[in-house]
Order: sequence, then structure tokens, then C-alpha cells
Amino acid sequence: MTERLVEVKALDAALQRFTRARHWEQYHSPKNLAMALTGEVGELVEIFQWLTEEQSRSVAQNPETAEAVRDELADVLIYLVELASALGVDLNEAINAKLVKNALKYPADPAA
Amino acid sequence: MTERLVEVKALDAALQRFTRARHWEQYHSPKNLAMALTGEVGELVEIFQWLTEEQSRSVAQNPETAEAVRDELADVLIYLVELASALGVDLNEAINAKLVKNALKYPADPAA
Amino acid sequence: MTERLVEVKALDAALQRFTRARHWEQYHSPKNLAMALTGEVGELVEIFQWLTEEQSRSVAQNPETAEAVRDELADVLIYLVELASALGVDLNEAINAKLVKNALKYPADPAA
Amino acid sequence: MTERLVEVKALDAALQRFTRARHWEQYHSPKNLAMALTGEVGELVEIFQWLTEEQSRSVAQNPETAEAVRDELADVLIYLVELASALGVDLNEAINAKLVKNALKYPADPAA
Repeated sequence: MTERLVEVKALDAALQRFTRARHWEQYHSPKNLAMALTGEVGELVEIFQWLTEEQSRSVAQNPETAEAVRDELADVLIYLVELASALGVDLNEAINAKLVKNALKYPADPAA
Repeated sequence: MTERLVEVKALDAALQRFTRARHWEQYHSPKNLAMALTGEVGELVEIFQWLTEEQSRSVAQNPETAEAVRDELADVLIYLVELASALGVDLNEAINAKLVKNALKYPADPAA
Repeated sequence: MTERLVEVKALDAALQRFTRARHWEQYHSPKNLAMALTGEVGELVEIFQWLTEEQSRSVAQNPETAEAVRDELADVLIYLVELASALGVDLNEAINAKLVKNALKYPADPAA
Repeated sequence: MTERLVEVKALDAALQRFTRARHWEQYHSPKNLAMALTGEVGELVEIFQWLTEEQSRSVAQNPETAEAVRDELADVLIYLVELASALGVDLNEAINAKLVKNALKYPADPAA
């Protein structure tokens, strides 16, 4: 039984309408979407690259970076959802399966 | 008014429990999580790098790559949700705001 | 014996002068330089993301992308040389060692 | 006049022989090489992701990471040189042009 951990169907549908209305389907192969995802992650990383770990905690409160970081997080999620959709992968199922693997790979500290 | 496009709260809570049970909070600064996100996207891209666009469409059906691509998509989503959470960014609000910007930046073809 | 395959000492020296003259040493930890490298690779990838493989071959001839692709290739090399230097890694030795490993891992087709 | 800052011709020639001997030319479009470069940078970043900036300085001395970091730096340089070669871009010229731009964009501190 799969727990409901994430729900992205409404976003997936919105993105499909957006793409179709612009005739972009031809560009949105999984290979290309994986590249676009890379590009957005690169833009996200650039916000953090010269900051200390401590400074990085207030990026979303800092007026100079607050909007940019929200936009880049959104862009990463947009391409991730488009890529999963183009591949026919259910992200909720994929997450559930991966969390089980992670729990086996990294057992919790019994003293915790 | 913000439309409910994505829902990641249950995943966020599950990841926080997972992290706390392993005493990993100390490592999970936004800066470090942004790097971890990069690493996972790199692993995802490696699945696609030598494939044609056409071949890339069947990656999730191909037995050689099906499990890997689901795992990597999940890993990207995991670190994205952890990063947003560490920054105090609501991904649903960020997505809604970004889709409005995208619609203004790329007007739909009126003939479509 | 190590073959002389790459020579980056003059660039390394030029970058060190550039960095010192701007008091940027404090920001250029290996961790930060690895992030900066990621960001530049992201910008490079964005040039290619919606192109077919065939179109990608003429990116440096196309007036719309020629300058950008040269700049991004240069930026990637700049941060790679800075990172190797900050780590005390001799890129020529690293390359020689890696090519030996690659030759053992991927034997050449004897019929070629 | 272009200063000789980097020299990668011998590596370029070695990589071309290596690729031809394995019939890999068909896979090495600029688009694919840009993706391969991304993948290698992702592997490089994974070495640094949970380290502090201070810890990141000794990655090439630490026996657990020394070989991996040299290998990943080499892999990034390999795909960068292959990509520049496939595009017909002279990296030394590109670097010279970019350093001029950088010097104009970021003037040195006159007091330094």
C-alpha cells in the first residue's frame, strides 16, 4: 500500500495546458527536460555559491534573494513534474519506493 | 488566491522524521541541500546522456533503466522538498507565483 | 612517466592574481568553487537544452549563441582550474591517471 | 594578441583517438557531451556536499576522497575539452576573451 506523500496532479495538468497552448510539446522530450532541469538547478545553486552555510539559512528572508530563490525552486519543481509526466512515472509511487530503500540503507540510530 | 497545485506536506514531515532519527540536521543547511540536489540531478542526467530524444521516451519502460530513473526522480524531489522546507518556502505558493510570471513572459498563441 | 597532455599553469597564475586583486580568496574554498562550477555548467547546458543533437553541432557558428557558448566554456574551465589549484591537484597528472583507468575499463575494439 | 594561458591540444588528440578506437563518435554530439559534463560535475559536487568549507580544503589529502576527487576533476576536463573540440572552439582564445570581459566587469580594488 502506497502512502499519499506528494500530490502533483493539478500542477501536471496545468503544465500540460501551458505547454500545449504554446506548441512546445515538440521540445519536451525527456532528454531535453532533464537538461532544462539541470539548467534550473544551476541557477538555484548560483544563489548559494558564495554564502556560508549560516548565511544560506536566510536566503528566503533576504530581500535581495527571496524572490529569486522561490522562483528557482518553482522552476526545478516544474521541470521535475514535466519530466516524470513525460516518462509516465508516478512521483508518489517513486517516492514511497525510494523511502523504503533509504530506510534499509541507512538504519536509524536506535538510541535516538 | 492561490490554487492548490502541489501538496508535499506529508513528504516534508516524513523527511524531517527520517533526518532527525539519524541526527543529520547538522548537515542539512540550505547550501548543502542545494549541493545534494545538484548531485542527484547529475545522476538523473547520466541516464539520458547517450540516448537520442526518441530513446529517452522509453527510459521508464526499459528494464535496464526503469528502476534507476524512478529512484533518481524521487531523490531530486526529496532534496527539493527538504531545501524548500529548510528555507521556509511554501512550494505551492512559489509555483503559483511562478506560473503567473511565466504566463506573462510567454503569452499563449491566440490561434491555438 | 607522465605525458604532457594539458598545461594550465599560466591560467592558474592569472586567476590567482585576479582573485587576490579583488580580495576574493575568502570566498574561494573548494566547496564554493565546486558550486560555482555547477552554476556555469548549468548556464552552458541551457544553450543546448531545446536543440536537436544536429542543431547542437553549429552552436559556435550560430551568431545567436556563438559568443555565449565560448564564454560559458571559458567559465567552466576557469572554475575547474581554480578548484584544482585550491585542492593542490595537478590536472595533468590527474588526466594521465584517469586515461589509463579509462583504457583498462573500456578496451578498444581490436577490429578498429 | 592572445596570450598562451592553456594548452589542451595533446589531450584533445588523445581523446579523439580514444573515441575513434571505440566507435563512440556517433554518441559525442555537443548536446550529449554537455550532458556528460553535467553528470561528471554532479559526481564532483557529491564529494563536497556534506563537508564544511574548511573540511573541503583537505579533500585531495584525505585518503577517503583523494583518488575520487582527482578522477572527477579529470573527467570534467575530459568532457570540457571534447565539447570545445566538437564545437570547434579554441579554449585558449575563449579564455583570453572571457578574462578581458571579467576584468572590465569586476574592476580591481585600486587600494589592493
